[in-house]
Amino acid sequence: MSVKGNLVVGQSGGPTAVINNSLVGVIHEAMEHPEIEGIYGMVHGIAGILNEEFIDLRREDAQTLEILRNTPASALGTVRYRVRDADYERLLEVFQLYNVRYFFYIGGNDSMDTTNKISLIAQREGYELHAIGVPKTVDNDLMMTDHCPGYGSAARFVASAIRNTAMDTEAMGDSGPIKLMEIMGRHAGWLTAAAALARENAGDPPHLIYVPECPVTLDKIVEDVRTAYERHGYCVAAVSEGVKDPSGRELGETAAPGDVDAFGHKALGGAVDVIAEAIRAKIGIRARMDKPGYLQRSFAELMSSVDREEAYAVGRAAVRAAVQGETGKMITLARRPGPTYVCETGLAPLEAVANKERVMPGEYLSVECNDVTQAFIEYARPLIGGPLPKYARLAKYPVPKRRR
Amino acid sequence: MSVKGNLVVGQSGGPTAVINNSLVGVIHEAMEHPEIEGIYGMVHGIAGILNEEFIDLRREDAQTLEILRNTPASALGTVRYRVRDADYERLLEVFQLYNVRYFFYIGGNDSMDTTNKISLIAQREGYELHAIGVPKTVDNDLMMTDHCPGYGSAARFVASAIRNTAMDTEAMGDSGPIKLMEIMGRHAGWLTAAAALARENAGDPPHLIYVPECPVTLDKIVEDVRTAYERHGYCVAAVSEGVKDPSGRELGETAAPGDVDAFGHKALGGAVDVIAEAIRAKIGIRARMDKPGYLQRSFAELMSSVDREEAYAVGRAAVRAAVQGETGKMITLARRPGPTYVCETGLAPLEAVANKERVMPGEYLSVECNDVTQAFIEYARPLIGGPLPKYARLAKYPVPKRRR
Repeated sequence: MSVKGNLVVGQSGGPTAVINNSLVGVIHEAMEHPEIEGIYGMVHGIAGILNEEFIDLRREDAQTLEILRNTPASALGTVRYRVRDADYERLLEVFQLYNVRYFFYIGGNDSMDTTNKISLIAQREGYELHAIGVPKTVDNDLMMTDHCPGYGSAARFVASAIRNTAMDTEAMGDSGPIKLMEIMGRHAGWLTAAAALARENAGDPPHLIYVPECPVTLDKIVEDVRTAYERHGYCVAAVSEGVKDPSGRELGETAAPGDVDAFGHKALGGAVDVIAEAIRAKIGIRARMDKPGYLQRSFAELMSSVDREEAYAVGRAAVRAAVQGETGKMITLARRPGPTYVCETGLAPLEAVANKERVMPGEYLSVECNDVTQAFIEYARPLIGGPLPKYARLAKYPVPKRRR
Repeated sequence: MSVKGNLVVGQSGGPTAVINNSLVGVIHEAMEHPEIEGIYGMVHGIAGILNEEFIDLRREDAQTLEILRNTPASALGTVRYRVRDADYERLLEVFQLYNVRYFFYIGGNDSMDTTNKISLIAQREGYELHAIGVPKTVDNDLMMTDHCPGYGSAARFVASAIRNTAMDTEAMGDSGPIKLMEIMGRHAGWLTAAAALARENAGDPPHLIYVPECPVTLDKIVEDVRTAYERHGYCVAAVSEGVKDPSGRELGETAAPGDVDAFGHKALGGAVDVIAEAIRAKIGIRARMDKPGYLQRSFAELMSSVDREEAYAVGRAAVRAAVQGETGKMITLARRPGPTYVCETGLAPLEAVANKERVMPGEYLSVECNDVTQAFIEYARPLIGGPLPKYARLAKYPVPKRRR
């Protein structure tokens, strides 16, 4: 049996539609292990430790936890705070004061770095602590895992959103034939790529998909739009906010200087505005834009059932790994080879994940840099939790023209 | 029995999530009346008549029509084309050529004007034609009807979207505490006002709602945001794209000159950008923005069940009115007084609807010009088809702080 003590769990970075499933998974599993005494939640992530703001999760009622599994965003509160070297001693001090022996951080690659450093400093100081990272990000950009909890639900929202707005665009015909949707993703195009899951038949929208991994000039985009419009009578394009030109410059680099977040990431947005302006100048059509923004990561009504269960499973697996003596690891999702989708949890060293980004591999990107491949669609399809609802089109049998 | 002849039906203006229900309602009802021979669809609205592009809706299979009831956007194709005086003779010529005796146009106030003029010119020329308008608009701005089919589903999307993005904003805390959502509505705030339906308890977001009917200065908005942020720790605001200052100038008046649609309406968008910039300058916080755009009118997964049935009912009622001899009328929805929501179809003269806009009455607007009243909420609540899904919040029992 492992060391007896208290558990703390926190949520970090951008919320997702299913991140509370990981929290509930941690709580449910922890309740089954007698070595775990207090189950404490960190209020607003690592800031909750630094401020000693913990809540007692054992006292939450079971019904609340069930409904939380359908509730988007981070129920504990989240944070974007880059932990400084000087903070780590303070963290350890608080762990000792509260006899924290189990630490779980649900987050992305910044959070995995934090978790790794916490694990290392505890080992260095000879304090027994089991620190495990629980993966979460709609960006799907963590190394060592087949995919990330949070991605499947965001991908379902994006596929559905692009399909709905494309139905609208197709219906408008020449009264509004060009639609651009700006999709989250600074460096990795996984979420934008999910727009391809809207297609049922060849030629279905989105007609164009632009991701940061595949640099493309503004002129090429305009010509792609023109070609698609001429072929289909309308054009729908999915555009990553971080799409780049071949010089590496982001097309949407219009943010004011100094407009950066706590990690020094530049605030983005604006790629579709730049593209729309070029379309107006060169094709003479006003492109319409959708920027669903934070709906992509919070739209619980479109939660993927697969994502929901996996987010819960990684929470439970993290606790099991910790009580088995692990530390400095992240829970992964490993897909079994074969025609049927089956995923199991696994473990990876945090140092292989911390501060790294997994971008889309070349085999998922079209040669033309304006679409994804069938291989990507086969990768992503199972993650959104079943097909989108069935839509119909009229067969449109023409009425013969009459002579006068 | 009415005159024997053919029926044409068309869809016009911006699509909605439920507009195909009105089309299917027309088709289903028409099949029950022996005086109606051909049931023809206009391809892209009035352009389909001018171009003699009709499709034979009797040949569509029943299963397709059922699935169309869950399919967003205009299955016949839609159009934004201002019918010119010279066109009306051509329209009548085509009606005579195809023996069209029943005309149904599913659209907003522009379309009601077109339908009225078609009815009048047929009467003037002594050609028996029954022309009936079928109301449709997410803007909810048609006169003479309690509300418009299409509004309830868009309202449900807006309420849900603002609730989801607010959960995200609340979770972010000081890492991203201000959220602005730009909502459709140039002159009428009905759809933006629907954001209020996201609230369950006092103090729930959205904290602020700005509509075009209630002019407000940029400074006042910034101070409202500051106050809400200080009170709640975060602030979520719903902003109509057409929100105005007391001089009548739109806050988002940043569109390039000449950027107007076929009706001379100026292209808008940008109100939230202007507000975000003012917040950054005066409060020093970068406000986050969601601009769900055309998702508001096409997101079929959030279709309101009430809206779906009413959209279908107005289609059926239009055909019944026409075969009973009516012309120059629009179908209305009339709400019965009383505590239980019941709506029946009625008739109004098209000249009372054509080219008019119904804006929100004063009783629905807060004195401070930053919210709606309980009277509005009671008006709108039944239209979205049942409550939003249940979400939970942790009770957050604090863990006592330990002394060192």
